[in-house]
Amino acid sequence: MMSAKRFALIVAGGSGSRMGAEVPKQFLLIQGMPILMHTLNVFANIPSVNEIVLVLPESQIVQWKSLCIKYHFAVKHTVTKGGETRYQSVKNGLMQISNPNALVAIHDGVRPLVSDEVIENCFLAAEKYGNAIPVIKPVESVRIQEGDNSFIADRDKVLLVQTPQVFKVSIIKKGYETPYQPSFTDDASVVEFMGEKIHVVDGNRENIKITTPLDLRIAETLMK
Amino acid sequence: MMSAKRFALIVAGGSGSRMGAEVPKQFLLIQGMPILMHTLNVFANIPSVNEIVLVLPESQIVQWKSLCIKYHFAVKHTVTKGGETRYQSVKNGLMQISNPNALVAIHDGVRPLVSDEVIENCFLAAEKYGNAIPVIKPVESVRIQEGDNSFIADRDKVLLVQTPQVFKVSIIKKGYETPYQPSFTDDASVVEFMGEKIHVVDGNRENIKITTPLDLRIAETLMK
Repeated sequence: MMSAKRFALIVAGGSGSRMGAEVPKQFLLIQGMPILMHTLNVFANIPSVNEIVLVLPESQIVQWKSLCIKYHFAVKHTVTKGGETRYQSVKNGLMQISNPNALVAIHDGVRPLVSDEVIENCFLAAEKYGNAIPVIKPVESVRIQEGDNSFIADRDKVLLVQTPQVFKVSIIKKGYETPYQPSFTDDASVVEFMGEKIHVVDGNRENIKITTPLDLRIAETLMK
Repeated sequence: MMSAKRFALIVAGGSGSRMGAEVPKQFLLIQGMPILMHTLNVFANIPSVNEIVLVLPESQIVQWKSLCIKYHFAVKHTVTKGGETRYQSVKNGLMQISNPNALVAIHDGVRPLVSDEVIENCFLAAEKYGNAIPVIKPVESVRIQEGDNSFIADRDKVLLVQTPQVFKVSIIKKGYETPYQPSFTDDASVVEFMGEKIHVVDGNRENIKITTPLDLRIAETLMK
């Protein structure tokens, strides 16, 4: 059986507000290169990934294109404009992918530290099950709030969800036909909402989401 | 009203196994000094903390004492031997504290990055409510496993628990009279088991538990 075509959909919607920076966080530098280029590089270096689609706020597209020139960034990719929310941005990005039998890995632009192995495992599992997402277990005890109280949870049953979240294109597109719900905190929750079972695979702990100056310092360390 | 006497009970039970190191993880160096000394320093530098009790595996006590000489470590503290499990170690440590009206902050020896403010806030809240523990919210989406399936959780209701966990001594001692239960993943869960309501305060995100080589590198970065 021939493998399905593989897309990476990189979603970079953030501003720099939580960073205390003027520059959008995905354009901040690690080892002298914008975070977002590191992230695209990871997917570009995986031979089985056929195409990369980048979703950016419309206001950042001109800046991105000059950054690509400045940094001689040669990774082939399509840029498309995002929406008001992450939900709308992913929806816009999916419109660039027409092959219903392809697989798409939807990934946060500010997660440059995902491992090749995790990406590959997510694609393989999604090929088999229709979807796959990487998860890690928390190191900490976990409590669940109920009203003004909270109760200890069974830590072994708690999963922290990362990206890439990989789906068969027809399935995720169907999911994104659902109007936005407050429970949609990631792409898997959109697909789950229509009754699909979500398949989890082991993530890599280094794959942090860079959203604060602290995360930026950690990512710099981890990339060394 | 006079404030209650304040103890810090530092629990350092770990081996180096998850670190791939021969040296117990609490003795690994950050900025040229064992992690455990950094942790004790934090509490020693808080004027309102009256006494520090350190719980160590019996097999590590001689090594600790020579490290204290080697590093000219002058922080006054009592050393007591731990047990087979963390539960037994905390129980042993609590036997060193007789004042039932005192407050005790039970803290992981491998969390040197807790902030003074978090410690102070935990003591203040525990003085008022009988207990207080620091928590942070996860950045990630969270799923809860049920059987071979998993379901999205309301992220806003999920709390990741850190230390120090501060208790009125009489309350935590009563908790530790309960025989060990599998649900006891931290000290708050022991106290909760006897029906006490647990009070949460904001933790600091830097306060990571150093258990892997990756954590060690992150801690080194954060301490700069």
